[in-house]
Amino acid sequence: MSFKEQFTDYIHELQDSICNSLEQIDGKAKFEQDTWVRPEGGGGKTRVISNGKVFEKGGVNTSVVTGELPKAMQQAFGVPDSDFFACGLSLVLHPLNPYVPTVHANWRYFELYDKSGKKKDSWYGGGADLTPYYLFEEDARHFHGTLKGVMDPFGKDKYPKYKQQCDIYFCNKHRGDEMRGVGGVFYDYLRPSVEMDDNQMIAFQKANGNAMIDAYLPIVEKRMNLPYGEREIEWQEIRRGRYVEFNLIHDRGTIFGLKTNGRTESILMSLPPRARWVYNHEPAAGSKEAEMMKYYKPMDWV
Amino acid sequence: MSFKEQFTDYIHELQDSICNSLEQIDGKAKFEQDTWVRPEGGGGKTRVISNGKVFEKGGVNTSVVTGELPKAMQQAFGVPDSDFFACGLSLVLHPLNPYVPTVHANWRYFELYDKSGKKKDSWYGGGADLTPYYLFEEDARHFHGTLKGVMDPFGKDKYPKYKQQCDIYFCNKHRGDEMRGVGGVFYDYLRPSVEMDDNQMIAFQKANGNAMIDAYLPIVEKRMNLPYGEREIEWQEIRRGRYVEFNLIHDRGTIFGLKTNGRTESILMSLPPRARWVYNHEPAAGSKEAEMMKYYKPMDWV
Repeated sequence: MSFKEQFTDYIHELQDSICNSLEQIDGKAKFEQDTWVRPEGGGGKTRVISNGKVFEKGGVNTSVVTGELPKAMQQAFGVPDSDFFACGLSLVLHPLNPYVPTVHANWRYFELYDKSGKKKDSWYGGGADLTPYYLFEEDARHFHGTLKGVMDPFGKDKYPKYKQQCDIYFCNKHRGDEMRGVGGVFYDYLRPSVEMDDNQMIAFQKANGNAMIDAYLPIVEKRMNLPYGEREIEWQEIRRGRYVEFNLIHDRGTIFGLKTNGRTESILMSLPPRARWVYNHEPAAGSKEAEMMKYYKPMDWV
Repeated sequence: MSFKEQFTDYIHELQDSICNSLEQIDGKAKFEQDTWVRPEGGGGKTRVISNGKVFEKGGVNTSVVTGELPKAMQQAFGVPDSDFFACGLSLVLHPLNPYVPTVHANWRYFELYDKSGKKKDSWYGGGADLTPYYLFEEDARHFHGTLKGVMDPFGKDKYPKYKQQCDIYFCNKHRGDEMRGVGGVFYDYLRPSVEMDDNQMIAFQKANGNAMIDAYLPIVEKRMNLPYGEREIEWQEIRRGRYVEFNLIHDRGTIFGLKTNGRTESILMSLPPRARWVYNHEPAAGSKEAEMMKYYKPMDWV
């Protein structure tokens, strides 16, 4: 089986297993699926959970798209006359309880062809990052530690490198380099046989995808029953405003998807259920919210 | 007095008179002012109203900035080695009651110089647009009619042309060309002595600025005491999500300001106090919300 077939099968299995695990922990809401077809080739399965006991809003989406590379992308990549194949899984989960962090992850594979169908290039990308509203340091250590644990067998350099790329990427530069959360890992343009050999490369992707449940669900289980009130909700919504800002102003995938006529509702499933903007908001000195601000910057977690 | 001095004086007088009128109608909240200084030259006065009886959140901001044109802007405009002067007033008002529309307006003047200080170019820009959540057709007719009324003496071609530019500009292209509201007028790059003679041009700007209170406040007074409940709030917040999408994805001023190190809190005062995102939301067939969707497209109002 080709790597694109292998990875396509994998993301669909992973979508099933992640959705099952999330439904079990939620205990109330179920994912609803919308399949969509891309007129130019391919399509996707968008699975959304709403108004759960644990998850207020979230999506676990797969897509497999093919065809002529959109002109804007041919220009951006400097590859005229190219066709492409792209598949990936993207997830974002916004829990109800402000003590449970939001999580985002994505794993993707891309192939580029010339007009005769000959493969010119291929690469993997991916990552996962955690956005807590209040932080238990052990949660950030657990999340980062789990990601490091699955990357280390592929080289001790991987986690530090991709952790740093994540710190740089998930950052609201217009807010004085404030990170949207406590980071995780982020990598892109990993070419098979350049970064690692072909088989190792897909094994690396799968190890990362498989780690998601272990990295995130124990945190959810620990914090989902903590009591909270209007104060915590207000702070959660203000921080979710920052999440919206990052996704709409800085996130390459979101902007690219919207500008190249992607399926808007699938792309914007990443936006939180509720957000709030308060002019010049600053948490009171010494409050737990002011404390939290200290964590929205690159830090060593493992 | 030079035109830049005249227009600078004007926007500060207008800021005072608009803020006074809005405070009177609100009856509870007062504007709070933050003055800020731009390290490279100039600064601004940000005036924000929050948690009023009528206005949940709003800003009426002026800025007067000078110095070397930021490199990104030199590139965008194709004018290397340029200094600039820019001044303007921007306002956005988000009322509490979902039956009262949000309004946005902006009037600005720009001069460009070579390195010896010689003026190379200058232009005016401006506009006003209305974003209702529920529409009383007479309100859109009043808003558009007032704008047309002040433009007509400067040429019967002005309102139709700038109304159309507004329809094109304030549009969420990623949402199937859905407008964010019912439009108004929008114009840019109006060069004195090209578009009109110098004195007429500044008179046109002032006529537009002065029309704001007449165009908007009667609508506020008519609708601010209508009863509403959770249903109307939900719809208002969903539509405010669209407002956020427009401002962060498409609005040239917002994106440019954020990417060129403008004062973030003054730029993002335009964002609504609260917003909501519901996956694939569609108003129930035949509901007043479904009815409203028909108005978010270019229409003749006068």
